[in-house]
Amino acid sequence: MTTVIPAIVAPSATEPLFVGTIERRDVGAKDVRIDIRWAGICHSDIHTVQGDWGAQQYPLTVGHEIAGTVVEIGSEVTKFAVGDRVGVGCLVNSCGECENCAAGSEQHCLKGAIGTYGATDVDGTITQGGYSTGVVVTEDFVLRLPEAIPYEKAAPLLCAGITTYSPLRHWNAGPGTRVAVVGLGGLGHMAVKIAHAMGAEVTVLSRSLSKKDDALALGADHYFATEDPETFRSLRSSFDLIINSVSAAIDINAYLKLLAMDGTLVNVGAPAEPMSVSVGTLIGGRRSFAGSNIGGIAETQEMLDFCAEHGIAPEIEITSADQVNEAWARVLASDVRYRFVIDIETLTA
Amino acid sequence: MTTVIPAIVAPSATEPLFVGTIERRDVGAKDVRIDIRWAGICHSDIHTVQGDWGAQQYPLTVGHEIAGTVVEIGSEVTKFAVGDRVGVGCLVNSCGECENCAAGSEQHCLKGAIGTYGATDVDGTITQGGYSTGVVVTEDFVLRLPEAIPYEKAAPLLCAGITTYSPLRHWNAGPGTRVAVVGLGGLGHMAVKIAHAMGAEVTVLSRSLSKKDDALALGADHYFATEDPETFRSLRSSFDLIINSVSAAIDINAYLKLLAMDGTLVNVGAPAEPMSVSVGTLIGGRRSFAGSNIGGIAETQEMLDFCAEHGIAPEIEITSADQVNEAWARVLASDVRYRFVIDIETLTA
Repeated sequence: MTTVIPAIVAPSATEPLFVGTIERRDVGAKDVRIDIRWAGICHSDIHTVQGDWGAQQYPLTVGHEIAGTVVEIGSEVTKFAVGDRVGVGCLVNSCGECENCAAGSEQHCLKGAIGTYGATDVDGTITQGGYSTGVVVTEDFVLRLPEAIPYEKAAPLLCAGITTYSPLRHWNAGPGTRVAVVGLGGLGHMAVKIAHAMGAEVTVLSRSLSKKDDALALGADHYFATEDPETFRSLRSSFDLIINSVSAAIDINAYLKLLAMDGTLVNVGAPAEPMSVSVGTLIGGRRSFAGSNIGGIAETQEMLDFCAEHGIAPEIEITSADQVNEAWARVLASDVRYRFVIDIETLTA
Repeated sequence: MTTVIPAIVAPSATEPLFVGTIERRDVGAKDVRIDIRWAGICHSDIHTVQGDWGAQQYPLTVGHEIAGTVVEIGSEVTKFAVGDRVGVGCLVNSCGECENCAAGSEQHCLKGAIGTYGATDVDGTITQGGYSTGVVVTEDFVLRLPEAIPYEKAAPLLCAGITTYSPLRHWNAGPGTRVAVVGLGGLGHMAVKIAHAMGAEVTVLSRSLSKKDDALALGADHYFATEDPETFRSLRSSFDLIINSVSAAIDINAYLKLLAMDGTLVNVGAPAEPMSVSVGTLIGGRRSFAGSNIGGIAETQEMLDFCAEHGIAPEIEITSADQVNEAWARVLASDVRYRFVIDIETLTA
């Protein structure tokens, strides 16, 4: 048995989204049914629909920044009750048994974590995402949204928040560390806020000076334009950690040279093309080039609690179900400060 | 005033080496004069003379794996006495004041460490290396050779030993860690011995099976041929640390995929060409691609003491001053197990 609910649907890789319907499974013993109230728009949604990261099965509903309310629980659910304000991020399941799952890194499940959309679920169906009025998820992949975080602003934390929090925590951003954030979009602006709250000295590296006032208001200590070659000369060997939020290919060697000894440049975006790395730049300073992918479930809850404690939330622009195609066009044009969130009350079949 | 001494000299990037002479400065207040007894042959010597890493000033004497005896000390020398058995590695000076020098990483001196050969010394002369009968070095860059290490085997530790010890130590090789060593040459065979002595589980990845018996005898637990594609399938996500000792460009993404979550692949060789890295491979498993360059002076002493304590020394083949051109040809053909050491008693003008 399934339930048919309204959803924003991509009919193919190239056609506009439209308002249609999808099916949700009945609530199993360990499942939670969530009425979705807000859904963030992530650039990954667009990449996925366009087939940039592999072929998809259409029609497809995307969205992995979900904030809503529990409306039904399975017989064995212990963590949540009807009425709880909850979130769902990029994952809805994993094997739970491999060494990475055991370590709390479900996103690196060796059998393959199940993504919130476009993945093959345990029942063989293709998962459908959060641009819809509801979702059914096993309770282990549901997050508790702290009251201190405004409801509509909680959604983007489930991807943009954890994607930047996790590497900042893993590579020990804090007092005395010099962190640079490359790119000031949905991810980058959260990286600035979180790194600042952790106590790090934060520098934003963005193409032009156009976002300088924003960056400083978000908590950055310094700002440099990367279109100015002097930036790369003056900042050489200056940072302990660089979070690169740009998912296009950049001249990575120019940025690696900005790392101090033992510094790490972490890509949180995944450009489709490989990057050409000069090994001498890594050897000269024991530098590292690394990648990071969202975070585990426990760490995602830790991030939400951290944001609540520090009063951190994304800067958002609210949009409606009938404006999502326009919103996507603006995301592609980098014309949003800094995250769109869909008001799911506007989504009706 | 200077002293003229016998040395093996490269007249240009392309002509054979010959036995000639070089000059050494007089002993300054903090200097130590060393009679060289053994000098290791490192592939870097050849790269440097051939101009692979930049133009050189000829004639040039190379060699940065030096074992000898102190024969004269300056008035302010406190660490060494005449008769001490000592070594000199890849560095003969650094600024001593920058944050990296202060951290004991003189090799990453922000003003530029002074290499043992082909570098501009503080007095403006070009440094000349260990293929000679003597050298004068400031005492802070002289190492003490433990008695337990056979004299002729101590020399290669000053480069091949520290280059592999440093990343193994920095990335915490030890009981419970799975270390792979790519390439079984001068550096690789020391990586195997040291990682094994640290208690790690050691796997050698070499092109063919031809060195399997050697590798196991050196301390490896496992051995796989990289010419067999099955190696890359069966070892996926298997290692915490990979030491890549191959200085030619390899398909780095194939090796990055062999890293377990949070694993690091460290290049200790510097191929001239950039390497093409798939960022998705880094992101999937929070993997890192890093570089490491020899080690600081204190860490080099620590390595020597570690090798003495664990009875570790390189496998060497002794050669003579008049055979160095032939030895170089064999190094280029990977035809040495595993390091040539020049008997400097055979070097006379």
